[in-house]
Amino acid sequence: MKIKAGFLQFNPVFGKVKQNLRTIEKMLKEQDFDLMVLPELCTTGYQFVSGAEALSLSESPGGELGGMLLKLAKNKNAVIVAGFAEKEKDKVFNSAMAVGPEGILSVYRKAHLFFKEKQIFRPGDTPFVPVDTGFGYRLGIMICFDWIFPEAARSLALGGASVIAHPSNLVLPWCQRAMFARSVENRVFIITANRFGTETRDSGPPLTFTGESQVITPAGETAVKAGPNECVAASCKINLSNASPALNEFNHLYRNRRSELYRL
Amino acid sequence: MKIKAGFLQFNPVFGKVKQNLRTIEKMLKEQDFDLMVLPELCTTGYQFVSGAEALSLSESPGGELGGMLLKLAKNKNAVIVAGFAEKEKDKVFNSAMAVGPEGILSVYRKAHLFFKEKQIFRPGDTPFVPVDTGFGYRLGIMICFDWIFPEAARSLALGGASVIAHPSNLVLPWCQRAMFARSVENRVFIITANRFGTETRDSGPPLTFTGESQVITPAGETAVKAGPNECVAASCKINLSNASPALNEFNHLYRNRRSELYRL
Repeated sequence: MKIKAGFLQFNPVFGKVKQNLRTIEKMLKEQDFDLMVLPELCTTGYQFVSGAEALSLSESPGGELGGMLLKLAKNKNAVIVAGFAEKEKDKVFNSAMAVGPEGILSVYRKAHLFFKEKQIFRPGDTPFVPVDTGFGYRLGIMICFDWIFPEAARSLALGGASVIAHPSNLVLPWCQRAMFARSVENRVFIITANRFGTETRDSGPPLTFTGESQVITPAGETAVKAGPNECVAASCKINLSNASPALNEFNHLYRNRRSELYRL
Repeated sequence: MKIKAGFLQFNPVFGKVKQNLRTIEKMLKEQDFDLMVLPELCTTGYQFVSGAEALSLSESPGGELGGMLLKLAKNKNAVIVAGFAEKEKDKVFNSAMAVGPEGILSVYRKAHLFFKEKQIFRPGDTPFVPVDTGFGYRLGIMICFDWIFPEAARSLALGGASVIAHPSNLVLPWCQRAMFARSVENRVFIITANRFGTETRDSGPPLTFTGESQVITPAGETAVKAGPNECVAASCKINLSNASPALNEFNHLYRNRRSELYRL
């Protein structure tokens, strides 16, 4: 089964939620896609100075972002995944929602917080379980730094995901290169939607995000990739039947696991 | 702590155990090292036509290979890891032994057999647990196709390995590139000792092995790498204190794992 899948890479303006929403809406309206992945914290920006500030800019999944994504998903008959600051009462999570034409499919809360995110967000409490999109395939979500823990993508793949959506605000130089291994070892497509640009807040050092969003195939091939500072929505046809853990007639990468010999 | 670590890459001649032993001995004698890794099945060659043939060429860890490695390890005051066809009564395993100056440190039996190896070898029954080398660091072993299962290197790293020795007879094109992720995600050194050359046996297709043995650092850097068809023993100084799972003051790649959220 082939779908048209891709990412939106842009440079969110810190704290300007409505402006960022308009940018996203405008860029997505012009696109044709079945699955679109947006960056982490795509409406707020990244470098909050406090949990209170993050809370003040956060929203529930049914808020303005969710409403806009639902409208777009209906209009395109597609699935959209977007990272956002999620408000639950007085708590704030670094989350991502998957939205389909019928409504919100799932909300994932980032499990592995990077660096000072630990001072801002609650650690995620949602397991790495993919969701049935209703379009004949299962979709997993991991956010940014989750990538470095092989258990995250592995759990999603074992749960039947053909595609992993990976909203990101990457600052370290490793991820885009390492996704080759993640795709090949799990035989899944991985869509890393990264932001670009530099954020300077009073409290912290300037943070530069690395762009280079990409779609990687289960064979480790780069199907499409953005530049490091490109404002772009890009997509490509991917054949989901290539997401198969059967490598040859002797080797099935899930069933060949030797759990009794691991010490995890 | 710094050690001199490396690999021996050569082209074993199928079935010529004594000739291969002499090649190995000659190449290692000329080298200065603290840790040396040899390819998978380094004394026998790879493409057995039957389990009986493999059994006939196999030996116990205390056999001729083990004896020669022990002499070399004593002489160099070093650790040597070598892949070999291991005989245990009427069973044969695709194994690797680690030998130090005092004797055999461990024998690991390949857990994940590739392709038709399943018709030749018993599946390994030794857990992924590293061994204390007696030189102030722990060493893990995985063999060739084990690399594609992230659980293998992960188990060894969580068990305290600073270095993973990876004897290989690689035919697929992915491993050397993927070891970047394995090193970075686990913050360990990985030494892939691969063979080169082409083996043609009556029963099967010609198999070409990819060479390009390498030492990768915990930061994903290639410290030393051989060419695809180079007969060479190579080594470099590696600083084992760089094998630290503490990425920054907030992130420890082992302690930050969220086992309760994984579905493995």
